[in-house]
Amino acid sequence: MAFYQKLVHHNKKISRLEHLEAICGWDQASMMPEGGNSARSEALAELAVVKHELSTAPHLTEWFKQAEGEQLDTEEVTSLHEMKRSWQQANVLPADLVEKKSLACSKCEHAWRSQRERNDWQGFSQNLKEVVELTRQEAQIRAEATGLSRYDALLDLYEPGMTTSELDELFTEVKSWLPELIQQIMERQSQDITIQPVGPFPVEQQENLSRSLMTKLGFDFNHGRLDKSVHPFCGGVPTDVRITTRYDEADFTSALMGVIHETGHARYEQGLPEKWAGLPVGKARSMGIHESQSLFFEMQLSRSELFIDILAPLAAEIFQRADDPALSADNLTLLNTRVKPGYIRVDADEATYPAHVILRYEIERDLVEGKIEVEDIPELWDKKMSEYLGLSTKGNFSDGCMQDIHWTFGAFGYFPSYTLGAMYAAQFMAAINKEMNVDNLVRERNLQPIFNWLDRHVWKRASTASTDQILIDSTGERLNAKYFKQHLEQRYLK
Amino acid sequence: MAFYQKLVHHNKKISRLEHLEAICGWDQASMMPEGGNSARSEALAELAVVKHELSTAPHLTEWFKQAEGEQLDTEEVTSLHEMKRSWQQANVLPADLVEKKSLACSKCEHAWRSQRERNDWQGFSQNLKEVVELTRQEAQIRAEATGLSRYDALLDLYEPGMTTSELDELFTEVKSWLPELIQQIMERQSQDITIQPVGPFPVEQQENLSRSLMTKLGFDFNHGRLDKSVHPFCGGVPTDVRITTRYDEADFTSALMGVIHETGHARYEQGLPEKWAGLPVGKARSMGIHESQSLFFEMQLSRSELFIDILAPLAAEIFQRADDPALSADNLTLLNTRVKPGYIRVDADEATYPAHVILRYEIERDLVEGKIEVEDIPELWDKKMSEYLGLSTKGNFSDGCMQDIHWTFGAFGYFPSYTLGAMYAAQFMAAINKEMNVDNLVRERNLQPIFNWLDRHVWKRASTASTDQILIDSTGERLNAKYFKQHLEQRYLK
Ligand SMILES: [Zn+2]
Ligand SMILES: [Zn+2]
Repeated sequence: MAFYQKLVHHNKKISRLEHLEAICGWDQASMMPEGGNSARSEALAELAVVKHELSTAPHLTEWFKQAEGEQLDTEEVTSLHEMKRSWQQANVLPADLVEKKSLACSKCEHAWRSQRERNDWQGFSQNLKEVVELTRQEAQIRAEATGLSRYDALLDLYEPGMTTSELDELFTEVKSWLPELIQQIMERQSQDITIQPVGPFPVEQQENLSRSLMTKLGFDFNHGRLDKSVHPFCGGVPTDVRITTRYDEADFTSALMGVIHETGHARYEQGLPEKWAGLPVGKARSMGIHESQSLFFEMQLSRSELFIDILAPLAAEIFQRADDPALSADNLTLLNTRVKPGYIRVDADEATYPAHVILRYEIERDLVEGKIEVEDIPELWDKKMSEYLGLSTKGNFSDGCMQDIHWTFGAFGYFPSYTLGAMYAAQFMAAINKEMNVDNLVRERNLQPIFNWLDRHVWKRASTASTDQILIDSTGERLNAKYFKQHLEQRYLK
Repeated sequence: MAFYQKLVHHNKKISRLEHLEAICGWDQASMMPEGGNSARSEALAELAVVKHELSTAPHLTEWFKQAEGEQLDTEEVTSLHEMKRSWQQANVLPADLVEKKSLACSKCEHAWRSQRERNDWQGFSQNLKEVVELTRQEAQIRAEATGLSRYDALLDLYEPGMTTSELDELFTEVKSWLPELIQQIMERQSQDITIQPVGPFPVEQQENLSRSLMTKLGFDFNHGRLDKSVHPFCGGVPTDVRITTRYDEADFTSALMGVIHETGHARYEQGLPEKWAGLPVGKARSMGIHESQSLFFEMQLSRSELFIDILAPLAAEIFQRADDPALSADNLTLLNTRVKPGYIRVDADEATYPAHVILRYEIERDLVEGKIEVEDIPELWDKKMSEYLGLSTKGNFSDGCMQDIHWTFGAFGYFPSYTLGAMYAAQFMAAINKEMNVDNLVRERNLQPIFNWLDRHVWKRASTASTDQILIDSTGERLNAKYFKQHLEQRYLK
């Protein structure tokens, strides 16, 4: 057998084990009784060992060398390139560093859960220092292997091809108009009168509403499920995507918007090309592109006035509240486009969200590059929160620099994906609007042409092209913050 | 590390992968949408390959040799013995025979699903011949490796230590009194007037009733779940046992008795000793002992008049039918102890069930030993059904020799477990009754002493002793059909 084919088989084998990992991980979060946890964790850890052995098998070096000398067509060359990329990422770190980092992160994350509650920055920072130190070592090794800067080498794990210089440029621009834009929106909204819906909204009815909207949004229930979990996520495998959510009987919109968000992630996975199933080239392009699909569904599409015109009567019908003014389309639109700076990233609206991300990006970038130390974080956090959102977090670590889980497990370089996703989504929507009238399609309840566009330009391309190429081919230009700005202005200031 | 310890680690590794297999298998049957099936099957097949590689790793031969020379305590010797038993069973067959049999069985089972519907014995028998031929080859190899006869070598896979000569003796005795006993019971019951409950019994209420009874029967919901599937089973892992059932809104008793049956299987699994978790010595002793636990819960305990006195008011309350005479304890007792010969094994009551099993045993024994051929089955089936149950199956293959799935996938030697289970269960109950008054305990709603007995004498012993030893230690004698006979006489003729 040709070595390229051997590599294909090898990668598919790993992917099949990842399938079991994904389903058992979903089960652990959504189905498993508490008492099953420790044996489950051991079983998943064992599978990780098996996968690691496969990913780092010594003969792969030779296989890649041989495969690179084989006669391959263009698609196979790309596929080989992506297999090699993921192989190199898995093999570049020495085993003892991987183990040390994994231990330090487990310790940091575990302690963080109670330290955050106690606002214990001193305790937390001790653990975080260790994680940062090991992350710097990791970044150094990845930088040497890739020729990238240290932070860029980490970015590359989540957003291949993205660089600090491009992010600096994008985010500097966003910072130049965002604080003022937020002010303008808040002034504009200060006169709005909103009615808070009053629960209970029974879980079963919320589930019906969720499923009904998922169906409208094209989720394929023959290849996926909706269930409950404490932390909502989109898991499973492309042939069987598992969305989870959490219902609050006092408030149905948060779960609903969460489900719509995860439906965007899910459709990307369900739409990945079958031809490349089980291979790196057939996987989602990047975290940012993944987030662009969820934000396209949630922010671009579903929080629009016209979509809420579909959603509101459906909600009123399912909750049997035809006459509840809180469930009118106008009121739900106001509630779902409310802009207000707050401490917590995960609760932020789409206008203030980039401020949370840029702040984290600037800190983690300098932390990885060794320009600042863990001790400097609280002061920088407070300074930037004040500057970008007008809020002080002095002394409040829990709602400040201790609010996120990402750094505790060493995921430096991940945060930019959220705002990149928002910008990609806006740019995709602008491009779609050049080809069709999205507003009219929504009015006609005909979303299919929009999904077809995403399927052709994003989902089916998977990792067969770089992010830049996907953007250029679909929107005519590289990533550009102006479409995001236009989107915010159009939605909030018109 | 000592070689015994190396083997322990190796077996636990395999067991952790089996954990993922069990959960993903459960998911496939109870949660997975149809469209996820083909990728799931591929993923599970890949895991089977990984497990097979581990089970047949060449260095294990040396490890066992070395371990057998090590200083081990009595328990470790037993554990080593069980590890070796399962290793030998996994390694004795040549890979090409395993593959050929697996292909032949897949083909036979798949075709059987439609052939049974069409009553197509000719088509089915062609495929079955191939399965039988390969099973004979398997039996021959296993016989040579174990020194057992061919059929005994297959029996040993399901019921270690059980032999044809012991089964012949047991079943000959049962046959000597069973047909007449069935006649007597039917005469006795011919005067009974029963009222068939009339549905609908909503699924949600049936689920509530099931969970309520499972709780009374000691099922630990912190280490397990109840869900739905087309074919009810008890799966998962000891720390997280997954029971499934199927509800019929027209009839609540079939699902309920099914759930109680699976609860017996589940408690055995939940009760296995933590000390030996992940090792062959910590697994259930045999299929027959497993079935003895489900039949103890279902037949010995729950179909008794006194237990139905608990069950009936609970059902009446949950279904809100306080005045429905069909749900009275007397009527439910009559319905749940109804004896009537029928064609279908899975629908049989406990009195006629052994006839179904003995018939299959006699045929499969002679088939494996080469004394009869596949062509002889229908005539033998008809003859034995007439003799044991007074029913002719001439020309009706679907409800005759084509009704079971077992032979299609080459599981010859499994059927005796069902009736061995019934006999073990009766013998256990008789022994328990020597130590305590079970009737009084049930009257007092105090089942704990009964469960404690099973836990001590069966569950916690797992595979640390032979079936014979477990029987002798707990009941004072080897397996004996007389307790089963006494049980039937006492329940049905008193
Ligand atoms: Zn997301
Ligand atoms: Zn059973």
